[in-house]
Amino acid sequence: MGSGANMVTASIITIGDELLIGQVIDTNSAWMAQELNKAGVWVQHRAAVGDVWDDIWQALDEESKRSNIILITGGLGPTADDITKPLLCEYFGGKMVMDQSTLEHVTYLFEHVFKRPMPLLDRNKKQAEVPDVCTVLKNERGTAPGMLFEKDGKVFISLPGVPHEMKGLMTDEVLPLLKQRFAMPHIGHRTLLTAGVGESFLAEMIKDFEEVLPASIKLAYLPNYGMVRLRLTASGDSETIVENELSNQFRELKQLVKEYLVVDEDIPINALVGRLLKQDNKTVSTAESCTGGYIAHLLTAFAGSSAYFKGSVVSYDNSIKKNVLHVKEETLQTVGAVSEETVKEMAKGVLNIMQTDYAVAVSGIMGPDGGSEDKPVGTVWVAVANKENTETKKFNFRFDRQRNIELTAINALNLLRLFIIQNSTT
Amino acid sequence: MGSGANMVTASIITIGDELLIGQVIDTNSAWMAQELNKAGVWVQHRAAVGDVWDDIWQALDEESKRSNIILITGGLGPTADDITKPLLCEYFGGKMVMDQSTLEHVTYLFEHVFKRPMPLLDRNKKQAEVPDVCTVLKNERGTAPGMLFEKDGKVFISLPGVPHEMKGLMTDEVLPLLKQRFAMPHIGHRTLLTAGVGESFLAEMIKDFEEVLPASIKLAYLPNYGMVRLRLTASGDSETIVENELSNQFRELKQLVKEYLVVDEDIPINALVGRLLKQDNKTVSTAESCTGGYIAHLLTAFAGSSAYFKGSVVSYDNSIKKNVLHVKEETLQTVGAVSEETVKEMAKGVLNIMQTDYAVAVSGIMGPDGGSEDKPVGTVWVAVANKENTETKKFNFRFDRQRNIELTAINALNLLRLFIIQNSTT
Repeated sequence: MGSGANMVTASIITIGDELLIGQVIDTNSAWMAQELNKAGVWVQHRAAVGDVWDDIWQALDEESKRSNIILITGGLGPTADDITKPLLCEYFGGKMVMDQSTLEHVTYLFEHVFKRPMPLLDRNKKQAEVPDVCTVLKNERGTAPGMLFEKDGKVFISLPGVPHEMKGLMTDEVLPLLKQRFAMPHIGHRTLLTAGVGESFLAEMIKDFEEVLPASIKLAYLPNYGMVRLRLTASGDSETIVENELSNQFRELKQLVKEYLVVDEDIPINALVGRLLKQDNKTVSTAESCTGGYIAHLLTAFAGSSAYFKGSVVSYDNSIKKNVLHVKEETLQTVGAVSEETVKEMAKGVLNIMQTDYAVAVSGIMGPDGGSEDKPVGTVWVAVANKENTETKKFNFRFDRQRNIELTAINALNLLRLFIIQNSTT
Repeated sequence: MGSGANMVTASIITIGDELLIGQVIDTNSAWMAQELNKAGVWVQHRAAVGDVWDDIWQALDEESKRSNIILITGGLGPTADDITKPLLCEYFGGKMVMDQSTLEHVTYLFEHVFKRPMPLLDRNKKQAEVPDVCTVLKNERGTAPGMLFEKDGKVFISLPGVPHEMKGLMTDEVLPLLKQRFAMPHIGHRTLLTAGVGESFLAEMIKDFEEVLPASIKLAYLPNYGMVRLRLTASGDSETIVENELSNQFRELKQLVKEYLVVDEDIPINALVGRLLKQDNKTVSTAESCTGGYIAHLLTAFAGSSAYFKGSVVSYDNSIKKNVLHVKEETLQTVGAVSEETVKEMAKGVLNIMQTDYAVAVSGIMGPDGGSEDKPVGTVWVAVANKENTETKKFNFRFDRQRNIELTAINALNLLRLFIIQNSTT
């Protein structure tokens, strides 16, 4: 990327000590980058700085040299550790004034939405003060308004750091404004997901394709959870040309990796499983030991999941496996909770209890404790079942607890996906 | 912060287009910042750049002007979109050579750990090539080694972007090396968590305290999930002086906010609930509708959770509420699934089935669909129960689906926490 005379570029500056001591993970930047990218803006740099006057000032200087658009999040809360607003005021040579429409909005929020019994504090009123050199962007969801500044042909936009407030402002105000003001090139992406093949071998498989790929198209490997996504990216002034070229190359790429292809979209596996179930008008339930409900959580992440997800039994304790899922005492005694036979019985158990078309069951050792020579940390059994069939698979993960839980869930969902496809009647 | 002659500073550079189009969320930087901070290194800047030669080069220039230590993650995979290694080689004026010990390690991993049936590719062997001007840091968990460079008194360390590989290298190699090489100041933090009070009112409550706080101590407000954390930070050469001063100020701060104080540590609420249960030797189960297993997931996030967590019934569908949890048909018919009576019966149901000391049950409307005038999106009922008592609370969240799920889970755990404390016999 980075080529093209009309490329509109952006930098994202995130402000807050909490980012620099690692107390919070920055999810805002990823979301903003996605939306900007969709709109045709190429985010070329992201920076995070602390609540330090000189550092913020320097970041504004540096990023305005780099990009057309500088987006700033954070540092706008009502408390004293926030210095962003006075700094922006000085940086753009303005003075602070009360913005009447923001004051009315803040007053309304406190009285009618937050329903605070306490009166509006000076501190809250101060949220309605803005530099007189900015355009105020209304924040429907909170008290800190967005602010737009211009300097030397560059556009600076300051947004609150609270994710849902930032998202609302981006969608309602910022993106429409940017589209109006800049002639955006078209940026296109095609992403596919593979499973069961490592990054190196995938690269070897598509080596010839990659070598003759036009310079205008970029190929990226994105390994995650033992699966690898491949992404093609191109940009240009003509949407038709960009999309046609991408479609042609993508068709070829899919053909080359078809043996390992999971899906030719950038869709998470939980959404994919949900879609398959919905298409077939089927339902699923889960019986989870080591994942502690995480598979159910993934299956209910999207609106409309009640159409295919009925419920789960999280059987962390063996007594729940026995008493609720009806795993045989003998099975637990002889082969143990982490075994093929146990997950089979768990799957059959939850299928009966919840009366679903499919069930998935997992049992394993997530660590860091609980491993043995026989069954080391990372040993996982997964079963998928319907009334007629059951399939099982053993995994050996080698990571930390959190990652083992995630890998188990993702791989169990992939096994379920394959099982649904095999058993699909449509 | 930023003061102190001996302050050792760091920048973190994250490399990868996937960060700039928002396809992945950067969790590495937060973890690295935490660990560096604990070791006495002040992270003053974070930057993310794409897989673009000039941008990476410029980031190295900029960050080395700013900080003593420059940590670089990403861009070291085996595939062709990675340009970081040749760039580092040129930047530090070296030439690429095969590192024998890394080659042996890569060969070992492929043969004995990954157990790949296919022979080692040139691409894999290439992972063992390094610039001859670096110190190789062994990556026990993967094929891409860490590399340490020095230039003009600054230390540059390049690490793979795969989280568990990066973490392993940081812990085993990087942090010990940095501690040896730099005389670190001591950085201390004290964090407390409050619930039930907004950021502004909290600020008003501790205004006088904040005004007379010594300049060497910084106070930060960290609002999250409707709770606010307060953090005091100080640094200095003498650990004793820093810690004493922090302890004194922290004692005062706790006193001022005691009405809303949840805990005087930086510990997530799920870990806190787990600790309370363990102390009392009690167990818990959950009955979840709208959270789809997320509360169970949070309760099983830590090793040793099997001591207090027995299991859950995720009753997404009303048939599961009736048939598994024994919620009365009449209740569902008359007051509906999202009601005080339903969550009470769900809590009692799971308490009986799982034979636990405590139970928590939730039912609500997470959105974006499913709301009504009577019960708009964000309406949630929570019940906590033991054999003798049941308590319920209604919440009205106003956010998107994901945030509503998280807020429900966090607030349900807080209600459980208070209930455990009230009912604790110890």
